[in-house]
Amino acid sequence: MFVENSSMYRLIFCSLLSCFIMLDPIAAQDRHTLQIRKMFESVMNEGEAYDNLRLLCKKFGQRVSGSDTAAGAVIFARDLLLKTGADTVFLQGCRVPRWIRGKAETAFINLNQKQIPVRIAALGSSIATPEVGLQARVVEINRLSQLDSIGHELNGKIAFFNVAMNPLHVRTFHAYGEVASIRRNAASLSARYGAVATIVRSLASNTDEHPHTGNMAYAASLPRIPAVAISTRDADLLSGLLKTNPALSFYMETHCRMADSVLSYNVVAEWRGREKPGEYITVGGHLDSWDLGEGAHDDGAGCMQSVEVLRVFKQLGYRPKQTLRIVLFMNEENGLRGAIAYQDSARARKEIHRFALESDAGGFSPRGFAFKCKTPAQFEKIRSWRSYFEPYDMALFTSDGGGADISGLFDLGALLADLRPDSQRYFDVHHAASDVFETVNRRELLLGSFAMASLIYLVSEMGL
Amino acid sequence: MFVENSSMYRLIFCSLLSCFIMLDPIAAQDRHTLQIRKMFESVMNEGEAYDNLRLLCKKFGQRVSGSDTAAGAVIFARDLLLKTGADTVFLQGCRVPRWIRGKAETAFINLNQKQIPVRIAALGSSIATPEVGLQARVVEINRLSQLDSIGHELNGKIAFFNVAMNPLHVRTFHAYGEVASIRRNAASLSARYGAVATIVRSLASNTDEHPHTGNMAYAASLPRIPAVAISTRDADLLSGLLKTNPALSFYMETHCRMADSVLSYNVVAEWRGREKPGEYITVGGHLDSWDLGEGAHDDGAGCMQSVEVLRVFKQLGYRPKQTLRIVLFMNEENGLRGAIAYQDSARARKEIHRFALESDAGGFSPRGFAFKCKTPAQFEKIRSWRSYFEPYDMALFTSDGGGADISGLFDLGALLADLRPDSQRYFDVHHAASDVFETVNRRELLLGSFAMASLIYLVSEMGL
Repeated sequence: MFVENSSMYRLIFCSLLSCFIMLDPIAAQDRHTLQIRKMFESVMNEGEAYDNLRLLCKKFGQRVSGSDTAAGAVIFARDLLLKTGADTVFLQGCRVPRWIRGKAETAFINLNQKQIPVRIAALGSSIATPEVGLQARVVEINRLSQLDSIGHELNGKIAFFNVAMNPLHVRTFHAYGEVASIRRNAASLSARYGAVATIVRSLASNTDEHPHTGNMAYAASLPRIPAVAISTRDADLLSGLLKTNPALSFYMETHCRMADSVLSYNVVAEWRGREKPGEYITVGGHLDSWDLGEGAHDDGAGCMQSVEVLRVFKQLGYRPKQTLRIVLFMNEENGLRGAIAYQDSARARKEIHRFALESDAGGFSPRGFAFKCKTPAQFEKIRSWRSYFEPYDMALFTSDGGGADISGLFDLGALLADLRPDSQRYFDVHHAASDVFETVNRRELLLGSFAMASLIYLVSEMGL
Repeated sequence: MFVENSSMYRLIFCSLLSCFIMLDPIAAQDRHTLQIRKMFESVMNEGEAYDNLRLLCKKFGQRVSGSDTAAGAVIFARDLLLKTGADTVFLQGCRVPRWIRGKAETAFINLNQKQIPVRIAALGSSIATPEVGLQARVVEINRLSQLDSIGHELNGKIAFFNVAMNPLHVRTFHAYGEVASIRRNAASLSARYGAVATIVRSLASNTDEHPHTGNMAYAASLPRIPAVAISTRDADLLSGLLKTNPALSFYMETHCRMADSVLSYNVVAEWRGREKPGEYITVGGHLDSWDLGEGAHDDGAGCMQSVEVLRVFKQLGYRPKQTLRIVLFMNEENGLRGAIAYQDSARARKEIHRFALESDAGGFSPRGFAFKCKTPAQFEKIRSWRSYFEPYDMALFTSDGGGADISGLFDLGALLADLRPDSQRYFDVHHAASDVFETVNRRELLLGSFAMASLIYLVSEMGL
């Protein structure tokens, strides 16, 4: 009896206290600050994202869509999310293109009877050269606007698109955005003028020896020609040699092909909302990668950071008001079939999506977030939360947000955000053999997870 | 005649125009913004800091005070500053301690007749073990406050200070600051209780296999015992084994010694002021390093960034009002003899020092600066310049600035600042064999140079 009474008094006291806390904005702020601090401590002391990323990278390595390693990673991720304590984990099917690189590429510059080897990699979705390779003279193109005037020189030649990322963009993604379409369209742009193949300068911020691959596409009406990326170092070499030896020739041999599409999956976990379980917040990255390197920064990092959000919520016994979906998307790199499947399902089920957060810019030191809001007022409200992030040096909030895998959720009502890590090192490893676990720093990766968990917490508790 | 007249009109017009620009604060702001932009373009397009750092690291490698490689680096730096176009370059003598590691260290844990090898490195200034090595039981200390209670157990044993850097400091230098004194004083703290040697957990932010060295000192009144750093991974191993095998023993063999002091030099370059050549602004880093790795981040980066400031000023034809001194200090790591020589000379010559800027926190992505001002109003004035740095994402200004090599200039009247790069990766490489050129990112290093040049420009043009 005594015990019961005591429990009852305690219950009443706690209820009153929590009413008080809910109504007093300063107390609420303190409560949020405290909760965010707890998440910080949990992530930095006990975070598992780094160890999980090591497992993903070292057990499976590259995870190009449709590959056996991608399939293995799906099972690994499902089990990891179950182990982490999700309420439900399910696999969401999607058919993905299966592009296979085949045997490693060979290429050299033929100059005065000498063969100078250079490093190339077929671009994703490209066809191969003939089995015996392909050799032709090279025409260098430094600006797309040159095509009109020198297009006629391309007939029977290899078009060499040598357009570097502009070093004057502080945020390297801006430089990437300017030239990514060249990689995508180089083959058709030059096939139109009769080119027999195309070489694209790798999209890298610095000069290195790695070819950086990435997706390309063929225009339906034009001949399909092989497309490859050349390392920035070899692009400089080739360009230099062309200046004095315009008649040099280039040999390349690639073995890639498009196989039949394959059934693959998004891995989706749910952490049920405490108040509005029928409304959704999505957090995720993409589980597929390119087939060079280990897809560590792109985007194993974002996936394991998203799992860490669940881990810390679970550990602290925190449930957002809305249901949290952790989504590891399939096929971001060459088709977005996972993102489409997720959106289609959301639309078909008439799901209510409030917020979606993506991490797909590398596991580097977080500087803040970019948002895509419905109204300027919404962005202003979110900007007022910067004070929660200032103690952690990650309070740079911009309004140019989005993210390939989540962008379709905007039309379904969701506000979007993407984590913005420091971008200086990203294009050193992007889509290249250098994107390996060893380039990820444990603290940087974990700080990103913490930032993501904090933002989701604030979105859920403060509303949008 | 016509030409002369035309020249004269042009002169008058330009004079009027520049008067107008000088008097209009908005025009002045635009002028500063433009000049800063020009520096940005010059540094990012043509900056040489990265290539110079490669030369420094690969030609000389480690540059511990008094070594031949440090002497070689002095000549290299002098020639580089002359080539870059300084008005004067001189070597400023200072006698430096010469500590020599000798043959690589050996260490293992003796457990049940098995020898488990571990990685150690003698701490700078330490004496060696006897030639045949030293073996003893180990007492682990996790907090300095434990010494009172368990000090009596240390007699005849090895004191193992296993105190990790606190992961909850966002800025890793704060964590370092808390524990650096343990490394410095561990030998004397434990020798007081009869310890025969001391092992200190490496000061690293993450777990790795490298011992991280650093300076230590002996209290005059206590016996001198050998002091070593153990890699964080092996510290965890040793700690784990001690829990179940408290009687295990540890063998170590080090061969370091203190040789006679050596005459060495600061490398000092001047870029004469256009208005007040007798007043000085100092920018610099330290040319010496520890004897593991290549001293790339610590502090080849800061040195080559400082040289880059001169390069960009020279290229743009910009002279600050005050004379700019580029100072590559000698012996920051274990004696500060270069810093003392520079201050002593400044005092003796009654030089007027206005501002000093140091880069000694690694060549990572710059986030802003820390300042040490004379008054809060001064800091507020400087904070108002943040708008110039915001477009470059480096506008984090704090008031906890300083810097080992420049701190003495504060009492001579100078306001101090130090570049604050992102600190997450710094203690992965600090004082370890992993501090090599390959861990430096070109864009990050150059962005730091640009930040430094811009701050010096503003200090000189706006005044303090």
